[in-house]
Amino acid sequence: MRRLRAEQFGLKREVEYGTPQQNETVRQIVEAVRTEGDDALLRYTEQLDRTKLDAASLRVTEAEIQAAYAKVDDTFLTAIREAAVNIRVFHEKQLRQSWVDVQPDGTMLGQLLRPLRRVGVYVPGGKAAYPSSVLMNVIPAQVAGVPEIVMVTPPSTGGKEGIDPFILVAAAEAGVKEMYRVGGAQAVAALAYGTATIPPVDKICGPGNIYVALAKRAVFGAVDIDSIAGPSEIVVLADDTANPAYVAADLLSQAEHDEMSSAILVTTSVTLADAVSAEVERQLSLLPREEIARKSIERNGAVLMAETLDEALAVINRMAPEHLEIMTDEPMSLLGRIENAGAIFVGPYSSEPVGDYWAGPNHILPTNGTARFSSPVNVDDFVKKSSLIYYSKDALLASGDKIMTLARHEGLEAHARAIEIRLEQERG
Amino acid sequence: MRRLRAEQFGLKREVEYGTPQQNETVRQIVEAVRTEGDDALLRYTEQLDRTKLDAASLRVTEAEIQAAYAKVDDTFLTAIREAAVNIRVFHEKQLRQSWVDVQPDGTMLGQLLRPLRRVGVYVPGGKAAYPSSVLMNVIPAQVAGVPEIVMVTPPSTGGKEGIDPFILVAAAEAGVKEMYRVGGAQAVAALAYGTATIPPVDKICGPGNIYVALAKRAVFGAVDIDSIAGPSEIVVLADDTANPAYVAADLLSQAEHDEMSSAILVTTSVTLADAVSAEVERQLSLLPREEIARKSIERNGAVLMAETLDEALAVINRMAPEHLEIMTDEPMSLLGRIENAGAIFVGPYSSEPVGDYWAGPNHILPTNGTARFSSPVNVDDFVKKSSLIYYSKDALLASGDKIMTLARHEGLEAHARAIEIRLEQERG
Repeated sequence: MRRLRAEQFGLKREVEYGTPQQNETVRQIVEAVRTEGDDALLRYTEQLDRTKLDAASLRVTEAEIQAAYAKVDDTFLTAIREAAVNIRVFHEKQLRQSWVDVQPDGTMLGQLLRPLRRVGVYVPGGKAAYPSSVLMNVIPAQVAGVPEIVMVTPPSTGGKEGIDPFILVAAAEAGVKEMYRVGGAQAVAALAYGTATIPPVDKICGPGNIYVALAKRAVFGAVDIDSIAGPSEIVVLADDTANPAYVAADLLSQAEHDEMSSAILVTTSVTLADAVSAEVERQLSLLPREEIARKSIERNGAVLMAETLDEALAVINRMAPEHLEIMTDEPMSLLGRIENAGAIFVGPYSSEPVGDYWAGPNHILPTNGTARFSSPVNVDDFVKKSSLIYYSKDALLASGDKIMTLARHEGLEAHARAIEIRLEQERG
Repeated sequence: MRRLRAEQFGLKREVEYGTPQQNETVRQIVEAVRTEGDDALLRYTEQLDRTKLDAASLRVTEAEIQAAYAKVDDTFLTAIREAAVNIRVFHEKQLRQSWVDVQPDGTMLGQLLRPLRRVGVYVPGGKAAYPSSVLMNVIPAQVAGVPEIVMVTPPSTGGKEGIDPFILVAAAEAGVKEMYRVGGAQAVAALAYGTATIPPVDKICGPGNIYVALAKRAVFGAVDIDSIAGPSEIVVLADDTANPAYVAADLLSQAEHDEMSSAILVTTSVTLADAVSAEVERQLSLLPREEIARKSIERNGAVLMAETLDEALAVINRMAPEHLEIMTDEPMSLLGRIENAGAIFVGPYSSEPVGDYWAGPNHILPTNGTARFSSPVNVDDFVKKSSLIYYSKDALLASGDKIMTLARHEGLEAHARAIEIRLEQERG
């Protein structure tokens, strides 16, 4: 692996906005579905997904879901069910209550928290059709109390006939009752604006290709969207106490995703750097996805040498990695100094796949340095707040004059008069 | 006011994306500031804001802030200070703690909550330079614990010489220590990418004209942004028990903002509808901003007649108003049936200006129907979460096989091996 001084490490953060032609294609698709509804949806499904459907066959039937269960082995089913429980338990701990503050003068102020009414989850049909991601998108919405969660996914997965049965089973296990076989920008537009067959949603989540990402951008405002995911990243902070084979294996688990993934070791130890580099080479050669992982390591992998732990932490906070593993002598002692990271894996046994599949925290994490300001997918993403304001007559009489002072200063006389007319009538 | 059947009311929701030329102008400005820094910032400030500055004079000095205090009357200062206290108290109640769940097998899972490091607040220089909005943007960030809050505002406000002293005082009272006299798309770009004089921020908030809005859209991803505000809206739900003069005054307080504002009464009572319409006409003629308010009422104002309270609530939830006032017989009994609203004002004394200026809840609210999925500005907007994952050796040994099952199903062998290498070594 290439080795750099930590302080010299330059960040490249490019936001993907698509080519003008891709944007124009998406604009046309979205506009057609918005104005023509099912007709356009079915036309693009035939044209782009090479599947001829009618409106009645868009929805996945209960019989198909049962048939999918028959194709899924028990080992998988047991594992995905236990993972779903773990994810549900972790997200239930995030649930918050509406609250109100009541004052002696009668004033009541608070926040009413409510789930979104209807959420759409996009599941891609290509190689990235991951059952685990279905759980990670659906369960937080379900825990938030969203009454209607709908899944859309292309009519066939990865070139095979029909939708991957494992995806259908994961969605059913997560609690999705409404699934449609549509994908691409046309599916996003249908979720945003609704068609005769697919009622519109309030928020669209889930990963997809560039057309899906651009369509989500285009409908944002009409509905909410989740963040647009960038390539996956891992940073491992390790010292002489770390097991180089574990560090290397975890770096490679990120590198195998795709060539754009990045896997970076930050260390103060030359001994560890040497050992990890050797292990990466050894383990790489044994991997089925060696070619992808090797390209990722060559292009985006690095060992960053820091003089001190302070310097190591500074470069990590600057990177704001999606995943951060800490394998040092006293890993918990460093938590308070990690400002920016999507998920922090502490100690030698908290390998990233523990979080990807199992432990319960969400695996959909802020990429591309956005952990500086955004968070893993969580229950709050599916809850909205309304402010509650109740003023008694006494409270208004006590504050009215000062409210009018502020309103009149801003030249908003009608605001002042809305108070004044009450003061006049109620003071008698 | 025009009168419609509630069920016939059609929503128009247009998202403002700007003209191609406006987008191109903004793209050029953002790109210039990103690559040339202060040089471009000063060049555009001279060209667009007709103010020649050098890098050393960009920052507002302590002496200027002191001079601003000398220009502000005590009545205003007393009122804005008390408003700031109310806003701070309400937002402090929103503060949340990091949490961790500790299991007997050693597993520790949690969420670490931390404030963003640096936030930029944009304050427009035109007629909408509102001291109250400075408080509403700054205080939630400050309560969240953001250590660096920076304000940018055009070098002169509303055509006058220099920055409005009331804005400087409001910012100082809210706790801003760093202010720059730059505005427009160039200020947004400087905040997003940083220049030699202005270090970059993690999030940009605050309202502005179309160029500011498009610049925020353009830099989103490099930094976080708040929502793009649409025109302001009020819906009043009232019955025979309501005072028509209060209802009319509150509708007009919204209508005076600008011609795009909308003020809508929803009622089951023809008597009230008649009385409110007459009061609106009477009060309109007395307003200094009559012309604006009248256009707003004519274009976007309406009385929606509902047969039943259920129908009234259905149309309100469909509108998802920014502000909702409830002046009915038992207003609190309806709260549980309001699904979508930015802020809910309950009873005859909770006039909207109470919330705009005084009570404490934020006055920056979701517009344009986005209350279906988004919330008033609040402390969470300035806090990010990191997941914490600690697995003990025992926990990993107990779950490792199932993690590998899920990873292998998804074709991610290196993920499985990161677990397997540990199981092999630790099982001995």
